[in-house]
Amino acid sequence: MDLSALLTSAGINTAICVILLSLYSILRKQPSNVSVYFGRRLASGGFRQKDPFILERFVPSPSWILKAWETTEEEILSIGGMDAVVFLRITVFSIRVFSISAIVCCFIVLPVNYYGRMSHQQIPSESLESFTILNVQEGSKWLWCHCVALYIITCSACTLLYFEYKSITKMRLIHLTESPPNPSHFTVLVRAIPWSPEESYSNLVEKFFMNYHALGYLSHKMVHRSGTVQKLMSDAEKMYRVFKAASTEQSCRPGLMGCGMCGGPTNSFKILSSETSNVSGKDFQDMDLHRKKDCAAAFVFFKTRYAAVVASQVRQSSNPMSWVTELAPEPHDVYWSNLWIPYGQLWIRKIATLLAAIAFMVVFLIPVTFVQGLTQLEQLQQTFPFLKGILKKKYFSQLVTGYLPSVILILAFYIVPPTMMLFSAVEGSISRSGRKTSACCKVLYFTIWNVFFVNVFTGSIIRQLRVFSSVKDIPAQLANAIPVQASFFMTYVLSSGWASLSCEVMQVFPLLCNVIKKCILRNKIDSPNATLSFPYHTETPRLLLFGFLGFTCSILVPLILPFLLAYFVLAYFVYRNQILNVYASKYESGGQFWPIVHNTTIFSLAFMQIIALGVFGLRKSPVASGFTIPLFICTLLFNEYCRQRFHPIFQSHAAEVLIEMDRRDERLGRMEDIYQQLHSVYCHPNENCNEPCRSESSNHHREDMESIRDPETVKPGKELGQVIGSWAVHHRSLDTRE
Amino acid sequence: MDLSALLTSAGINTAICVILLSLYSILRKQPSNVSVYFGRRLASGGFRQKDPFILERFVPSPSWILKAWETTEEEILSIGGMDAVVFLRITVFSIRVFSISAIVCCFIVLPVNYYGRMSHQQIPSESLESFTILNVQEGSKWLWCHCVALYIITCSACTLLYFEYKSITKMRLIHLTESPPNPSHFTVLVRAIPWSPEESYSNLVEKFFMNYHALGYLSHKMVHRSGTVQKLMSDAEKMYRVFKAASTEQSCRPGLMGCGMCGGPTNSFKILSSETSNVSGKDFQDMDLHRKKDCAAAFVFFKTRYAAVVASQVRQSSNPMSWVTELAPEPHDVYWSNLWIPYGQLWIRKIATLLAAIAFMVVFLIPVTFVQGLTQLEQLQQTFPFLKGILKKKYFSQLVTGYLPSVILILAFYIVPPTMMLFSAVEGSISRSGRKTSACCKVLYFTIWNVFFVNVFTGSIIRQLRVFSSVKDIPAQLANAIPVQASFFMTYVLSSGWASLSCEVMQVFPLLCNVIKKCILRNKIDSPNATLSFPYHTETPRLLLFGFLGFTCSILVPLILPFLLAYFVLAYFVYRNQILNVYASKYESGGQFWPIVHNTTIFSLAFMQIIALGVFGLRKSPVASGFTIPLFICTLLFNEYCRQRFHPIFQSHAAEVLIEMDRRDERLGRMEDIYQQLHSVYCHPNENCNEPCRSESSNHHREDMESIRDPETVKPGKELGQVIGSWAVHHRSLDTRE
Repeated sequence: MDLSALLTSAGINTAICVILLSLYSILRKQPSNVSVYFGRRLASGGFRQKDPFILERFVPSPSWILKAWETTEEEILSIGGMDAVVFLRITVFSIRVFSISAIVCCFIVLPVNYYGRMSHQQIPSESLESFTILNVQEGSKWLWCHCVALYIITCSACTLLYFEYKSITKMRLIHLTESPPNPSHFTVLVRAIPWSPEESYSNLVEKFFMNYHALGYLSHKMVHRSGTVQKLMSDAEKMYRVFKAASTEQSCRPGLMGCGMCGGPTNSFKILSSETSNVSGKDFQDMDLHRKKDCAAAFVFFKTRYAAVVASQVRQSSNPMSWVTELAPEPHDVYWSNLWIPYGQLWIRKIATLLAAIAFMVVFLIPVTFVQGLTQLEQLQQTFPFLKGILKKKYFSQLVTGYLPSVILILAFYIVPPTMMLFSAVEGSISRSGRKTSACCKVLYFTIWNVFFVNVFTGSIIRQLRVFSSVKDIPAQLANAIPVQASFFMTYVLSSGWASLSCEVMQVFPLLCNVIKKCILRNKIDSPNATLSFPYHTETPRLLLFGFLGFTCSILVPLILPFLLAYFVLAYFVYRNQILNVYASKYESGGQFWPIVHNTTIFSLAFMQIIALGVFGLRKSPVASGFTIPLFICTLLFNEYCRQRFHPIFQSHAAEVLIEMDRRDERLGRMEDIYQQLHSVYCHPNENCNEPCRSESSNHHREDMESIRDPETVKPGKELGQVIGSWAVHHRSLDTRE
Repeated sequence: MDLSALLTSAGINTAICVILLSLYSILRKQPSNVSVYFGRRLASGGFRQKDPFILERFVPSPSWILKAWETTEEEILSIGGMDAVVFLRITVFSIRVFSISAIVCCFIVLPVNYYGRMSHQQIPSESLESFTILNVQEGSKWLWCHCVALYIITCSACTLLYFEYKSITKMRLIHLTESPPNPSHFTVLVRAIPWSPEESYSNLVEKFFMNYHALGYLSHKMVHRSGTVQKLMSDAEKMYRVFKAASTEQSCRPGLMGCGMCGGPTNSFKILSSETSNVSGKDFQDMDLHRKKDCAAAFVFFKTRYAAVVASQVRQSSNPMSWVTELAPEPHDVYWSNLWIPYGQLWIRKIATLLAAIAFMVVFLIPVTFVQGLTQLEQLQQTFPFLKGILKKKYFSQLVTGYLPSVILILAFYIVPPTMMLFSAVEGSISRSGRKTSACCKVLYFTIWNVFFVNVFTGSIIRQLRVFSSVKDIPAQLANAIPVQASFFMTYVLSSGWASLSCEVMQVFPLLCNVIKKCILRNKIDSPNATLSFPYHTETPRLLLFGFLGFTCSILVPLILPFLLAYFVLAYFVYRNQILNVYASKYESGGQFWPIVHNTTIFSLAFMQIIALGVFGLRKSPVASGFTIPLFICTLLFNEYCRQRFHPIFQSHAAEVLIEMDRRDERLGRMEDIYQQLHSVYCHPNENCNEPCRSESSNHHREDMESIRDPETVKPGKELGQVIGSWAVHHRSLDTRE
């Protein structure tokens, strides 16, 4: 691939980006697309419809970019929560560090690379390889430039990382103390309650915590089985009982067995129990039913945050496999479908999903290898001789080498996030944010492995048919293979990077669903339950992958850096806009993503240094190698220091902070209000808490409220349009997003 | 090496063993050796001197073996503590599992190996290789025997491991609840107390714990700097002050500044402070002195065990690098020299010692490579042609190949445990048992790496000059290399194993010191401070190494198993005898060694299976390979299950258990007694606690008591004989033992 092909690719991508962004700026002004582009503002009620018929509606304008630019971090924090701020910090950090890298590499490293060997063609038809380190001669005296660049990039990255980590931990502490009382701080999820033939789980929980945590224990709430099959079965049973009961008696009185389900001071009853108890004489049968439906898990509420954190961190029972406690997730963050999983299964589920994820990575090699073949035209022509005629045409060959591989890869990658989300769900996460974090890590490993390593390795294997002869040679092999693959990485940044941002801002899939809904099904109502939550598990790995590519390629292929910088700047505006307008934050992990970002960046830096070692070894520059080793050691030590200094803050809360918060709330007399809330907020979306007896209609209302809170729970029996709309949301949320 | 050489070696070693054991049975009856062979019983006062002059004294007898056999586990538990029982369980487990292995392998695998190829010489001059798996032909149908043996060994080992782990965790729980109240359960070690210019550390600790742990906090005790230099300096200063004070005033009153050091209800004073405060007008100077001597660490005492465990497990401060808490070790287990280390240094110390240990392992390759050369006579003759004449002689060559290599290796290995103990001390362990556990792991990795892997690799490299071409080939290479090295491993078991047990029971070094003391220096007093603590960090890795060799070689070289079994049986009697008579248990880790034993055994099993895979691959038996893979996976799953089920019990105490213990003590009214004790037991051996003012003589008495408690602290100014005696102990304790 030569420079002109690269510029063709860049041209195509820039044009597509400009067209899509202009289209977006027009589409977002159409009143019919409000639910697509202003989902969050619609849901929060802060959206006012503008006058529909003015010329302005059909003229593209950069107003959304200005709006995104002007919004302060405080506003983002209040709108999108801390997770959104932390996510945007990734883009800010990347812009900063790659600005420095781009300046250093383009003004120091690029000229050294280009003038390394003297024979040059005209610049447009110059091969990309003459801009890479492959062009530097062995034993060149100019390699110290690369070493200096390495030092500058590493030091600036570490300094920026340190201050980011510091400010994010500070933000996390402030967020913890300043935000309104969070029920999850008072709640502990107890699992693996031992089975007893005499007593129900609920009684056991009450006895245990009254015995060992008498001072702190407030009340508890059992968890019921609620898989899809379970729900269908219980619905059928419920219907049968309702019909049967309706034929005998219609009165409504509290159930005898209700207390068996929800213990503690605030007695609450499930509508099912109040109905079934009408059938007198079946008490024992009912109790059996409840016992079957109860899981060996419960939410236990404590009087203070400190008591809850103590109960969650100290091992409760002499058998480590029973009475397992951990702090509960936020009410909206609870992943109800996984709560019933027996604790004893978790370790084997984790191993199984790990193996499945690894198997998936390996199977995925097939499309990647195919894509790799496309960038090397000669190989392709040899393998498929009938293509020779077509590939001779210049534009076509440029399109194939410059664009097609990335498109195929992107399409193949669309199945990765939902698969990883599925794995994380099977793994047994009890919180949505935990599931997303776990999926985020899996997607990250997957992307870095499949985009970077497999491309580099298959590229070098296709060309050389050589395996690594020993571990010592890996850096040198990588140093040779990466510049060879430079063209692929550049086109990947251009196509996958830029295009993905345009698609993100366009919201192609919801837009299509909206068009179908509005134009074909003639459904004019904007349902507010269409708001999505931010897809951290796909977007974080994407940003990190580009960061990884940037660091790895910086001194080898400096030409990639301006394109990357453009990507990160665009990402900054696009994601700000999306957080402000599209995605609603339903739960908060308090910046749990940042340690992943930090570790990945350190890995990228260390990897960059290892490759640099390989480069200096190949180019026979012992001085530069000698200077790289201490840098590598210092980077690892810096990482270890950060792990010691900051990471525990993301794992648990400090006694000091919690006790001060408890005291403040007690002083302000807020404790009683909090206790009142606790029992009702941890309520399964299909369940009815706190109201002992209510009519079916109010129950419907409650379910509607739940579905606003939880877009993933789609109710049947709505209008067809709404069904398709919510199906689209549901599908999308399962697919690439939630 | 042929069978006759092996038998020569076995003969020499058996003879040496019998001679040494007979010598031991005579020497132990001599009244002059009482302090060497009955140190523990002498210290505990349970030893009665027999009539000195009877014939029986000079006749060897197996009475000590009978005594060791007859002692029950309960007696061992009461004498040597739980650690001793757990240690003996390793031998019992090994005897059981290797009995099964020996039967299976000698009756199934050995005949298959021997009759694999038909051409046989006379048995005595048969090469050892014809008893190994190298003798089985490719594609042999009899390889299923090896696979069945593999299954039997793995299943029996896992079953035994499970029941051992289960009974040891049960024992640990019983030990925790049934033993007398342990001050360490009430005590938390706080480190990284933040520096404040206004207040002393002591005040800060009191304020912090009174504020956040008002209910549980009892009192605290600051830690002072006490390195050797520090001690010398403070001694000099003390002497100067004593002399100066003696010239002005002789009265004795409590110091004004004493409270600055020890806070809480039980005010105690250090003799230094009571003396220096006599010099009036120097209060500020004194306070400065104390502040300099105080470290940012303190023992904090709590009213209940539960309060202590809560304070130790919940993170205290929002800055994870300050107010770091952990449960304190037992008073006699505290490693005082490390308490002053600033917490912020620990992580870097850990990394530094890890690197140092790895570097030490690499440097140690030199003697190992040299030893490896000796077992291959041809190589040796080629390298040193002048040796040819000597090596031609048959007995000499048998001696060189059968005995010398192991002796050199053993001698070189004598420097390993003290070096690793040094590393573990530098690492910053705060307890002696922690230091020993850490050293135990290091010695274990070191031994397995240097005895096993390096021998196998250098052996195969010398012969084949081939490096591993890929990771996939490692099992096959190992499967080839290990039987080749069979002769070395057998001689290693014979020489290092059997001889080390004889040396252990003979106590060669203390015996020599005793002889010097008694005969040359004419010192007849048996000082009771000569009792040693059991050297778990040298003996556990040794047992585990032989276990590792046994598993690895079982199906490859079944001939090794009878020798190993003999080793473990002898070890059982020797260690029982030593625990009963020689070593005193000064502190208790509660079986902390068992998880290391468990993990090493699982590693050995998994390694055995990987090698078996290599064997079946080389011998082209896909069925046997296919059956080995599920076994490997099941072994790893079994390990993970045990880690989930049992390991947490060795890491922390359960709330349930601690609260019950607190309640029982409260019911029995023992709490006040415990509180009284707490402050005085955590007392530096050089320091004087609890007694505000006492004369020099009683102080001397106290120091004597301390030195009984702690043999590593040797006091100057005693008689020369005692000095040498205690120097020997001291030296030995630093050297191979403590």
